Amino acid sequence: MNGSRLWLISKAHSPSDTTYRSGLSALAEKMILIINTGSSSIKMALIDMPSEKLLAEGMAERLGEAGASVSWTVADTTQSFDISGAEHLAAMQQMLDSLFLKVNKQQITAVGHRVVHGGERFVAPVRLDHAAMAEIESLSHLAPLHNPSNLLGIRVLMEHLPAIPHVAVFDTAFHHAMPPHASLYAVPYHWYSEYGVRRYGFHGTSHHYVGQQAAGLLGREFDDCRLLTAHLGNGCSAAAIAGGVSVDTTMGMTPLEGLVMGTRSGDVDPGLHDFIARQRDDSLATITDALNRQSGLLGISGLSNDMRTLLEAADAGHERARLAVDLFCYRLAKSLASLAVALGHIDAIVFTGGIGEHAEAVRAKTVQQLAFLGAELDGLKNSLHGSQSHGFISADDANVSVLVVATDEEKMIARYVCDVLD
Amino acid sequence: MNGSRLWLISKAHSPSDTTYRSGLSALAEKMILIINTGSSSIKMALIDMPSEKLLAEGMAERLGEAGASVSWTVADTTQSFDISGAEHLAAMQQMLDSLFLKVNKQQITAVGHRVVHGGERFVAPVRLDHAAMAEIESLSHLAPLHNPSNLLGIRVLMEHLPAIPHVAVFDTAFHHAMPPHASLYAVPYHWYSEYGVRRYGFHGTSHHYVGQQAAGLLGREFDDCRLLTAHLGNGCSAAAIAGGVSVDTTMGMTPLEGLVMGTRSGDVDPGLHDFIARQRDDSLATITDALNRQSGLLGISGLSNDMRTLLEAADAGHERARLAVDLFCYRLAKSLASLAVALGHIDAIVFTGGIGEHAEAVRAKTVQQLAFLGAELDGLKNSLHGSQSHGFISADDANVSVLVVATDEEKMIARYVCDVLD
Repeated sequence: MNGSRLWLISKAHSPSDTTYRSGLSALAEKMILIINTGSSSIKMALIDMPSEKLLAEGMAERLGEAGASVSWTVADTTQSFDISGAEHLAAMQQMLDSLFLKVNKQQITAVGHRVVHGGERFVAPVRLDHAAMAEIESLSHLAPLHNPSNLLGIRVLMEHLPAIPHVAVFDTAFHHAMPPHASLYAVPYHWYSEYGVRRYGFHGTSHHYVGQQAAGLLGREFDDCRLLTAHLGNGCSAAAIAGGVSVDTTMGMTPLEGLVMGTRSGDVDPGLHDFIARQRDDSLATITDALNRQSGLLGISGLSNDMRTLLEAADAGHERARLAVDLFCYRLAKSLASLAVALGHIDAIVFTGGIGEHAEAVRAKTVQQLAFLGAELDGLKNSLHGSQSHGFISADDANVSVLVVATDEEKMIARYVCDVLD
Repeated sequence: MNGSRLWLISKAHSPSDTTYRSGLSALAEKMILIINTGSSSIKMALIDMPSEKLLAEGMAERLGEAGASVSWTVADTTQSFDISGAEHLAAMQQMLDSLFLKVNKQQITAVGHRVVHGGERFVAPVRLDHAAMAEIESLSHLAPLHNPSNLLGIRVLMEHLPAIPHVAVFDTAFHHAMPPHASLYAVPYHWYSEYGVRRYGFHGTSHHYVGQQAAGLLGREFDDCRLLTAHLGNGCSAAAIAGGVSVDTTMGMTPLEGLVMGTRSGDVDPGLHDFIARQRDDSLATITDALNRQSGLLGISGLSNDMRTLLEAADAGHERARLAVDLFCYRLAKSLASLAVALGHIDAIVFTGGIGEHAEAVRAKTVQQLAFLGAELDGLKNSLHGSQSHGFISADDANVSVLVVATDEEKMIARYVCDVLD
């Protein structure tokens, strides 16, 4: 399908090209283009390094749907396009065409590609060549919804920007050092040796980034900190960080394991699938889809997958919204306590992601249940999301610091790209 | 099939009937017969109440197999019968025939039946009548391997002992007070309302028993204790006990969830089933069976589901045996830490079951990882399994007591029976 015929250019926020171009070229020493391709969205960012300044931010959303759209934001001004019905490829082309009107493509130094699954092969970011791309492709069975669209992004950007280095950054890589007793399941061993069944973990870029930021806020070396990081967005995961690496995390082989999420169940009884299949005569694919898309906060509440909506509904007396919030926080507290086993001692608990950064009540309900570990919040600091206290929301005399840190995966990817190229 | 034709009476340990009979009748005030019917075994016990003295213990094992056998032990003397090929019904008949040669059936006061699944209907032991039996039958979809054979036991014993009360004791009942945020999964809510999908928990009789015993050893009221109990046998589960009830536990809808077990996986990624189905073209039933029978300690080690064998092999340098033990202990420590969230404060950690009572190394490796909660073992007391220290194996100055308590589900069932009948 030719999605481009459906595009309508919105002029609602359309500053002159001159403004864009001058804004972009003023700062750049190294200009890194970041692309993060999801199952129905694409995010791009243009970042100046080493200043880490975000020069431009592009977004394609609801791909394949009637309301699909593309937007670019530069210097607080957003320009949006309707691309109803467009799929990934058409959306990428449109985003790049639009970007290259504003920035001279010769100025772009390198491209950083987020790739979801690096399997056991990729334990760090890697400069892309044909061999690396073939290996990423060979891992597609581990992330059938993600790696193929990540590869599409790589191919399209290599075509547009063939002369500069492209670097792949893997969501799994930060967790590569998990010891076998944390990374293996208690299943037939040949499932691991033959099919790669093990825990990989995800959100690694975010956990790494907020871990480093938290170390800075604590005034400590990152490698010396023992941290619990909770990335709470649409997907949610927590990680235990020690010695500068993740030593355990709640997501496993797929991003379905672990915490309660917006529409994902997190942990369930492994006997549940068979039970539901017998009761409802549903196929395994249908059941797995329900665990991914109709579960989590949405499944319990029957109302919404959005935490803000649920917190408001709970306050207004909606019983199952309250239950969804309670279950979310209880399961999060349990997971953080269990991850503490991997650390032995907790320096700080770090909240990030949309929920982690903005849901005061979720942080309060969760940390309250971790008082036995020495965590305690300062109510005022928490209500201000740490904005007036360098991220700290814990009580001054608490044994465990609690922090709110805004994640920035694009910035972290830019750092990785520079590391690889230097 | 008429299994009785295959029976061969072993006279290896066959004291005179007179000895048996006099031993049995001497003490009895209330003589309670307990029956515990498993998928391939039947356990019976005759218990004098209120002395709680075990008068006789019967066992049928490997039912349906060539090596099926029945034994009765009275006063340290065991009488065994080969019943090769016999199934449950024939084995029960044989066990009862044999018992009634030794004890006058008129002396039996009541029968206690272990029933695995009580669903949401049975939150306490119940005196059996036709209505209760019909309700147990209606719960069979929740425990298709167990409730039907439990019901068979009830029918057979009611036929043989029609004039006395029969009481059903449910493995799930002790966990009935789990709050909704601990008992519900984050799945579509109608799976709960229509099919009963929720966490029920198992081993309730054992957790309740060792919890009460531990309270006694602590010199405290059971209702005032906050305990973590770890039942580690072929099946393994841990529970958090507060206010005299279980407030959370690791097993869920089925006995497959939670800790690593002999051949059961415990928790896995909920996306694993679909992944394996795609890789191996296995049916969901085959995958679920592998998670129940080819996983756990056996799956990881590739060697054995027996902890003693694995500990010896690990000491001898068997790498995957060591890994299986490490994974078992790490996952147990993580689960205990997570259950502590439900308690807020831990008075004691209690080990029971075959592994819990006898595997010094498992307790040591587990508790070592819980030092951050204030738990610490006394090496000598642990090596003696608490036998010289009233069950205590913790260091004298540790903040959390650690105990070894031998479980006795039959004795606990006898207590429940007396409670119901009084």
